[in-house]
Amino acid sequence: MSDRFLYEGKTKIVEISEDGQNVILTFKDDITAGDGAKHDVMSSKGLFCSEITARLMQYLNTKGVNTMFLNYLPPNKIRAKKLKMIPLEVIVRFKKAGSFVRRYGGTEGEDLPSPLVEFTYKSDVMHDPLVCVEHLEVMGIVNKSIAEKIIEEAKKTAMLLKEFFSLHTFELWDIKFEYGVDEDGNICLGDEISPDTMRLRKSGEIFDKDIYRRDLGNPMEKYEVVLNICRSILL
Amino acid sequence: MSDRFLYEGKTKIVEISEDGQNVILTFKDDITAGDGAKHDVMSSKGLFCSEITARLMQYLNTKGVNTMFLNYLPPNKIRAKKLKMIPLEVIVRFKKAGSFVRRYGGTEGEDLPSPLVEFTYKSDVMHDPLVCVEHLEVMGIVNKSIAEKIIEEAKKTAMLLKEFFSLHTFELWDIKFEYGVDEDGNICLGDEISPDTMRLRKSGEIFDKDIYRRDLGNPMEKYEVVLNICRSILL
Repeated sequence: MSDRFLYEGKTKIVEISEDGQNVILTFKDDITAGDGAKHDVMSSKGLFCSEITARLMQYLNTKGVNTMFLNYLPPNKIRAKKLKMIPLEVIVRFKKAGSFVRRYGGTEGEDLPSPLVEFTYKSDVMHDPLVCVEHLEVMGIVNKSIAEKIIEEAKKTAMLLKEFFSLHTFELWDIKFEYGVDEDGNICLGDEISPDTMRLRKSGEIFDKDIYRRDLGNPMEKYEVVLNICRSILL
Repeated sequence: MSDRFLYEGKTKIVEISEDGQNVILTFKDDITAGDGAKHDVMSSKGLFCSEITARLMQYLNTKGVNTMFLNYLPPNKIRAKKLKMIPLEVIVRFKKAGSFVRRYGGTEGEDLPSPLVEFTYKSDVMHDPLVCVEHLEVMGIVNKSIAEKIIEEAKKTAMLLKEFFSLHTFELWDIKFEYGVDEDGNICLGDEISPDTMRLRKSGEIFDKDIYRRDLGNPMEKYEVVLNICRSILL
């Protein structure tokens, strides 16, 4: 293990860059679902997810969103800003699906009247429970003004991505973000933006990790379609 | 069944009063826990919970809280304002316990840095899931300004009850409220305030439904102690 090693998760490895200034994210070929209950390795997944993340974050950078993205290092690495990560998953929902439907009922794909931002607390032991803004302060995760800033950023960012995909006739149903604080003290979008972290549909066809969750065929064929539309964004 | 009958729940029956102006709540001797999985009938429970509710709501009325309470009708009935109930349980927590600890970890009885208000959506099918303020509007339950009014009322009311119990050297750990809208369109505290709906402790001793949930003896002995301290409030 290199002495620049920082962290290895289910789908990514994070290390300090050789010059010590940034981090290098290596996207693995692993795919997991159901809180880690399902796990496979799929050729090219690391490439697809890293290049999609790179291009979508590049697009967001040009739109004024503060993301971690600095450079894409083919085939499956990203050079990114060092962030102190906030242990939250920030979900923006345009339609009811997934854990929302399991929790509250309703129909997959039903429109929400306005975009909904949800937080879950990243904790393997507690299985990422839902937290409200009121919990974040009381539990010492982030204070209310940072929570409000994250909600604003997440909504804006999800709207930009929804717009991008809709230009390519795809529908963004929901998306999960993770945020950190950069060296200037600003809230910064980290982690990954890929079919692993969103629900993306086109005329009823699935282009996201639900293909894997529900055993509906080879997800990588669809991930490659998503990459191809993201290649309209220049690096 | 009387034609004035409105609703029968696990522990209460609601009917229109004979004059048609109000409702009559009859408190049953039933006690339940674990989403209805546990169920018993205990002599005097209806009396204890109705009289405790009556006296605590009377106390709150004198402190300017808008409650449903009009008259106590011994042994186990309350005359109350007609309310259009909001399908939420509103929990105010001063300490970590119960579903908070199951959801987020921590230790039973650990102080929270400030009072926390949580909502759960009353749905037998969905097992009363946690909802955040953001969900309430999107799910069409209540709008944000009503949610904020309820949070303010719930905090104020819980603080008043905490103060009352602390004068009697009891500690209020958490409490669950249910609200409705009265005929003047105001948010009004409904349902019940009793050891069924709060955690009340004294030097480590339990005076609430946790005795029943955890099979720690005869809860009614402790409910009677709570009633006796509430009898300092005159009706």
